[in-house]
Amino acid sequence: MTSADPPRFIRRIPEGDDRERLTCLDCGHVAYENPKIVVGSVVELEGGVLLCRRAIEPRRGFWTLPAGYMEMQETVEEGALREAWEEARARLTLEGVLAVYSIARLGQVQVIFRARLAEPGFAAGPESLEVRRFDWDEIPWDALAFPSVHWALQTWREGAGAPLGAPAGNPGTDPRGATPLPGGVAL
Amino acid sequence: MTSADPPRFIRRIPEGDDRERLTCLDCGHVAYENPKIVVGSVVELEGGVLLCRRAIEPRRGFWTLPAGYMEMQETVEEGALREAWEEARARLTLEGVLAVYSIARLGQVQVIFRARLAEPGFAAGPESLEVRRFDWDEIPWDALAFPSVHWALQTWREGAGAPLGAPAGNPGTDPRGATPLPGGVAL
Ligand SMILES: [Zn+2]
Ligand SMILES: [Zn+2]
Repeated sequence: MTSADPPRFIRRIPEGDDRERLTCLDCGHVAYENPKIVVGSVVELEGGVLLCRRAIEPRRGFWTLPAGYMEMQETVEEGALREAWEEARARLTLEGVLAVYSIARLGQVQVIFRARLAEPGFAAGPESLEVRRFDWDEIPWDALAFPSVHWALQTWREGAGAPLGAPAGNPGTDPRGATPLPGGVAL
Repeated sequence: MTSADPPRFIRRIPEGDDRERLTCLDCGHVAYENPKIVVGSVVELEGGVLLCRRAIEPRRGFWTLPAGYMEMQETVEEGALREAWEEARARLTLEGVLAVYSIARLGQVQVIFRARLAEPGFAAGPESLEVRRFDWDEIPWDALAFPSVHWALQTWREGAGAPLGAPAGNPGTDPRGATPLPGGVAL
């Protein structure tokens, strides 16, 4: 098998383990799947929030928080700052953790900070079509990319102007992050 | 190469990516490394806390929180409850997130809850030699398994008796989780 061929995996229980793992048919390598961490921010700006319109699938054209997958060798804070730069060309000051969401359907944990601009200015990075400040009553609720963007904005609104309290978890309407995206989007 | 042989990996930059990833020499499979999520709890009990003495390496014989790696298809809350049962045979009620720590050295994020027993009783699970309640002044500080156990216990103590506030992050003395373990333990 050359490196141009995609690896072929089956699910089986490795020796000494207690559940099925993806195992490479060609070399036996076990691809342990672990939940992935998304780090992002609700960025407060003049009473409103900063949103990015996605330039990439899934949910291209929909609005989201500056957020993305945490990388190795960084902290959650460093990851959130990096993503804000990559997606919104914004330098942030993080106030603290606003919410910790689980999307069990995807094996994903989202650590969402409350933040503000550390210096003026923002612009679309390579993964965004557009970056804009929205007043609360301007937020395009029907064009948000993911349910967790709704959740984070609602959580931000409920605590706006007050010191951060204990972080929110998933809303009672979706305690495990099990609701699929509208329109049958496979994510 | 049979499945009994360990896979052989090199670091290289896959097409379309921007950093080095572990790549299998035999089949080209890219083992994307992502930060792993540890979920655990500081369990309050009669003014003290519950600790587990580790039955497994690393740090066998040292004391730790009931905590462990989050699995796919579960929420952070479900993971923390599962680990408390596996390690301390304790059924918990989670109050909320006490701390979110990053151990950049390991590519690890720890989501630590403040919790209490949902029903009486605890006992050593298969990964623990012993599970004990400690008053604050009995805590075996020199025999704690990991720096983050210190951090979480200190954070718990500072907020004991008060409603949960914004979660703690890493302490100022180790903002990135870079300090190795005592005695040169390779973790
Ligand atoms: Zn393989
Ligand atoms: Zn391989």
